[in-house]
Amino acid sequence: MLDHFFSPKTVAVIGASREEGKVGYDLLKNLVTYGYKGKVYPVNPHADNILGIRAYASLEEINDRIDLAVIVVPAPHVLKVVDECSAKGIDSIIVISAGFKESGIDGAARERELHQKIKHHSMRMLGPNCLGLIDTQSCLNASFAADMPAQGNIAFISQSGALCTSVLDWAVDECVGFSKFISMGNKTDIDEVDLIHVIDEDVHTKVVLGYLEGVKNGTAFMNAAKRITKKKPMIVVKAGGTTAGARAASSHTGTLAGAENAYDTAFKQSGILRAKTVEELFDYARIFSHQPLPTGPRIAVITNAGGPGIIAADAVERSKLKMAPFSKNTVTLLRNFLPPMANVYNPVDVLGDAKADRYKFVIEKVIEDPGVDVILVILTPQAMTEIEKTAEVIGEISNRTDKPIVTSFMGGKRVGTGLKVMCRNRVPNYPFPERAVSAVEAMYKYTLWQKKSASEIKKFVVQKENVASIFEKIRHGERQCLCEDEAKQVISHYGFKIPKSILATSEAEAVRAAEEIGYPVVAKISSPDILHKSDFGGVRIGIKDASEVQRFFSDITQKAQRLLPSAEIKGVLVQQMITGGKEVVLGMSRDPQFGPLLMFGLGGIYIEVIKDVTFRIAPIGANDAEEMIHDIRSLPLLKGVRGEKPVDINALVDNILRLSQMVTDFPEILEMDINPLIVFPEDGGTMAIDARLTISQTAGNYQQKGSKQ
Amino acid sequence: MLDHFFSPKTVAVIGASREEGKVGYDLLKNLVTYGYKGKVYPVNPHADNILGIRAYASLEEINDRIDLAVIVVPAPHVLKVVDECSAKGIDSIIVISAGFKESGIDGAARERELHQKIKHHSMRMLGPNCLGLIDTQSCLNASFAADMPAQGNIAFISQSGALCTSVLDWAVDECVGFSKFISMGNKTDIDEVDLIHVIDEDVHTKVVLGYLEGVKNGTAFMNAAKRITKKKPMIVVKAGGTTAGARAASSHTGTLAGAENAYDTAFKQSGILRAKTVEELFDYARIFSHQPLPTGPRIAVITNAGGPGIIAADAVERSKLKMAPFSKNTVTLLRNFLPPMANVYNPVDVLGDAKADRYKFVIEKVIEDPGVDVILVILTPQAMTEIEKTAEVIGEISNRTDKPIVTSFMGGKRVGTGLKVMCRNRVPNYPFPERAVSAVEAMYKYTLWQKKSASEIKKFVVQKENVASIFEKIRHGERQCLCEDEAKQVISHYGFKIPKSILATSEAEAVRAAEEIGYPVVAKISSPDILHKSDFGGVRIGIKDASEVQRFFSDITQKAQRLLPSAEIKGVLVQQMITGGKEVVLGMSRDPQFGPLLMFGLGGIYIEVIKDVTFRIAPIGANDAEEMIHDIRSLPLLKGVRGEKPVDINALVDNILRLSQMVTDFPEILEMDINPLIVFPEDGGTMAIDARLTISQTAGNYQQKGSKQ
Repeated sequence: MLDHFFSPKTVAVIGASREEGKVGYDLLKNLVTYGYKGKVYPVNPHADNILGIRAYASLEEINDRIDLAVIVVPAPHVLKVVDECSAKGIDSIIVISAGFKESGIDGAARERELHQKIKHHSMRMLGPNCLGLIDTQSCLNASFAADMPAQGNIAFISQSGALCTSVLDWAVDECVGFSKFISMGNKTDIDEVDLIHVIDEDVHTKVVLGYLEGVKNGTAFMNAAKRITKKKPMIVVKAGGTTAGARAASSHTGTLAGAENAYDTAFKQSGILRAKTVEELFDYARIFSHQPLPTGPRIAVITNAGGPGIIAADAVERSKLKMAPFSKNTVTLLRNFLPPMANVYNPVDVLGDAKADRYKFVIEKVIEDPGVDVILVILTPQAMTEIEKTAEVIGEISNRTDKPIVTSFMGGKRVGTGLKVMCRNRVPNYPFPERAVSAVEAMYKYTLWQKKSASEIKKFVVQKENVASIFEKIRHGERQCLCEDEAKQVISHYGFKIPKSILATSEAEAVRAAEEIGYPVVAKISSPDILHKSDFGGVRIGIKDASEVQRFFSDITQKAQRLLPSAEIKGVLVQQMITGGKEVVLGMSRDPQFGPLLMFGLGGIYIEVIKDVTFRIAPIGANDAEEMIHDIRSLPLLKGVRGEKPVDINALVDNILRLSQMVTDFPEILEMDINPLIVFPEDGGTMAIDARLTISQTAGNYQQKGSKQ
Repeated sequence: MLDHFFSPKTVAVIGASREEGKVGYDLLKNLVTYGYKGKVYPVNPHADNILGIRAYASLEEINDRIDLAVIVVPAPHVLKVVDECSAKGIDSIIVISAGFKESGIDGAARERELHQKIKHHSMRMLGPNCLGLIDTQSCLNASFAADMPAQGNIAFISQSGALCTSVLDWAVDECVGFSKFISMGNKTDIDEVDLIHVIDEDVHTKVVLGYLEGVKNGTAFMNAAKRITKKKPMIVVKAGGTTAGARAASSHTGTLAGAENAYDTAFKQSGILRAKTVEELFDYARIFSHQPLPTGPRIAVITNAGGPGIIAADAVERSKLKMAPFSKNTVTLLRNFLPPMANVYNPVDVLGDAKADRYKFVIEKVIEDPGVDVILVILTPQAMTEIEKTAEVIGEISNRTDKPIVTSFMGGKRVGTGLKVMCRNRVPNYPFPERAVSAVEAMYKYTLWQKKSASEIKKFVVQKENVASIFEKIRHGERQCLCEDEAKQVISHYGFKIPKSILATSEAEAVRAAEEIGYPVVAKISSPDILHKSDFGGVRIGIKDASEVQRFFSDITQKAQRLLPSAEIKGVLVQQMITGGKEVVLGMSRDPQFGPLLMFGLGGIYIEVIKDVTFRIAPIGANDAEEMIHDIRSLPLLKGVRGEKPVDINALVDNILRLSQMVTDFPEILEMDINPLIVFPEDGGTMAIDARLTISQTAGNYQQKGSKQ
């Protein structure tokens, strides 16, 4: 897959330059400097040779098959060059040149043309407006980056070329190596999904890093990510999330960033670890690249200073990790060995005068404790501290254990010697304990994801056809919003319970309806022209007898005729009155990137202010639905406070799954709310009191942004 | 103040050692190595000279006045040495030796004895169990640290000696200098408050840093901090906050860490910036030490890469800062100068090929824009980037402007050359834009604190004597908890409105009471032996007429006599029934460190789960009370949602201030709740429906931990 990009036998550089400092020069130099075994053909009509390599006036002149063409000519010439590449039979190109979508209207038009040409020629393209790519296995540096990274097990894909240059520079200092390093540029053809597929198959890659400002096809992205994250951790910084950030994004690569909630949810559901900052991305990268996964959350902290031990314990407490309780045996061993003033419980304080041998003994004993899953060693540079030797000890132990070890050597210049030793032994060091704990936590979270079983998507037997015909009718009326009763009919066809409800067109009918439903009832005026029934006084609750029904019917219809003579009055809707239970909200809004975003939260006025809601992208299975219910902070209210009985959680799960199925079955549903959904105690089930639903004007063909249908 | 500690003319080292690697050797060496101008007297009965300096067998032998004694003998000998110091007329001592409170029961007893001796001799003492102190002005290094920091404007006080060694090591790399550097150890005598007073007066200190695991006297600490923070920023890491952390703390220096809420509140009310991590402490330290304060929140970002610009804009959006909108003039200047593809709005993208001159032009123009308060310059090491030269340009501009400039040179080895230049020019660099933004935000927050006017404490006219006599009565009955009616009486004497309420001892009295109050009423059984009245069925709301009153009286008193024959039944409390308004909660709990911690939050079942409450330490003024109301997330509910009228915020402020006065007037109040306090719309005032109050057994003498009364 995309083999010509990563291990081409021949590479042509169109726009290779003799002038130092030009991109066409740097790129060619990178190609020939780092041990690439294939053939490199510079193309430049004005040069005989560049960097001592014969240059060709045109592609045509080259008497060889070209696997990969790297294009660095100015933007206006790119289209012509692409045609020439096609004529030469080249199927893989990298367009380094800028001057496309990111540069305004003309550039965007040029990019569209470029895209069509690529499709037409059945080529694949990386870029335009990118730094290029690096593959350390084939020693291919087809980029104009200033460095070549060391071989390693990290694949990095980035939507920002400049960030790539920073990452490469950082990697040199941190002993971090890469397998593949790819700048995606404008992602006109090859995007994150293509690259995830390549990396998924790449045996040299253990960890996937990404910097994204948006994704092109949300569903394909999630599918690819779900698959790869079961095998390899994927850590992504998603920028351009906030309003200000998004504004900057649109002036940058033209990406329209999707809503933050949708990205958060999509990442979570795909097992992607979202790094909050680029620093966190690197912090996580090092531990995943260098250390084995922990088998549990129990961390042991070993320190030569009490303060930093407390800092670490604080950080553990705030995380999903736990301070490992030591076995009696471990405590005894430590007590017998350490000076009396040492703390032999976790965090172990080996005291300020600890030399390397004391660290060694303690780490060895603690790591053998079956109750310990991971070890954090903290060192402060005190007078007696053997920094380098302690680092050697830690490195040596790390190399022969299958439990992860991280360190926090705290300081600057003096601890620097130790850091080099740890770097060499692939023990990730963090200058502060909090960052070490956060990195370990990321690993632990990843193990939970790996263990999580895939949700089976349950299929309910529903009246899909009935819903389809309601939608058809609505579209026929050139409407998009469904009335309350229409929306409730729709959801009842998917198994939601709704209050009994009868439309009465006369006083007598209203009384009959009320008697059939049983008092007390609710009565509402029914008119497509009166949207805010309550404000109009068109809703009466708790009607107790026939005379009250009659009175409401006549009063409200007269009022409507008097005040809104042109309104179409369908009659009065007589409804079962629901009391008790708790109000929740179920809803969906269709995200342009990821499709149907389900929402669940507690109803009522407080939640409207507190905004205690959670999201998932449909379709989901039962364990996801359960997770949603457990996500919200106000869960205790559903479980019952002050001796109340818990509500029917099973019914809520059932309802969430039915909604998931419905919005998956009908892509034309743009957004909807079931609010309130009343959930009753114990096995009492639920009742949807009100519902709103908006559909698109065309059946079933709502198209997500960038989807390739 | 404590002058002998920081600029002694003579220093004796008792326990000076000839053996390299011993603390008594390192300490003496530090004293004589770094240019200290005073006289140093080693005391060691077994040595003639140490490090070429004449050593004395005892203090007595020294024929000079000693300003400061540094004691490094083993713990069991310390007490004797202290007596000798006193005999020699020494008033200032540093006890480096460990083996006190931190080492268990025996050590704690020794520490108490040490403390008494110090008091008895009227000496001042730093330590025990500390690293010592450094004063760079007097070139005094009376510590066994491995480094001497550069002269600078940061004072650092630390409860962890080991952390000091890390900070010193870190400072070397970061071009950070210190004025004073103090390890407090067990804080037996000299504590953070004493040191804040010293630093407050110290003209060489611009920034105060602290690492604390707890404070000894909360009120004194707040007063000292409030004073110093109006002049100098104070940044503190408070560790040992979480449960696990606190456990570690008690096994470390025996500090019982106060509740997190109290510390957060105390820091906030004292203008202390609380750093979440040690890294943040350092990040903030550098900007405060090296750059001027901004005059506003408007930040301009200048970058040679789009991605990091977006990252910075995201971070700004999440902060209290704002992306500065440029003036037309600035935009025009930038547009005329920059290449067409550059972004001339904030964040300014000077493009990947920007050399130092382009950065220079843009920074100079942007800094002149009156709408810009602070500048962040981002640099990624691209092919054409002039790293060192750009750093020179930034340093040069920073040296001649009074607006703060920070940078984020992103990378490792290659950007390193630039970092050195920036270091030299006191421009703080942050490896990631997020950290730069966070540091600038800290500065901005500090300017808000500096501008904040002190709250005047309002004094209400109240019935203090009446409350005192109620408390006297309670104590006389050997109780601590007040009954509901007693607690409500107490608060009504401080001006809280309470529902009309009459205790009736017969059916006839109950009817008269109800008529006087006006129907509907609430009736409750009154008995000190029935705590959970509702569970007992002893509360009836909405009583509408005399017959209902009579029936409830007879039913409930009979039920009580039948089921609880030994209970003392005082009668039935007939109460005004309150409807409408919103429920809030006012409360107080007395923190062992900081005293009366006021609480405010919305009442009701949701808030109990969501825990949307805020705290302040009493006494507070009106603007603090207003801040409390604005702190809570559910504020919109008080302001009115869905067309409701806003509640009477002024009455709430008044009530909070009355509570503040009450808990300040009566230190014997240990904790109390006014729950619910009903607040009515518009100018409707409030009504305290229920109240609970617990007092200590001794009048007015509740003693805060460590207070020195």
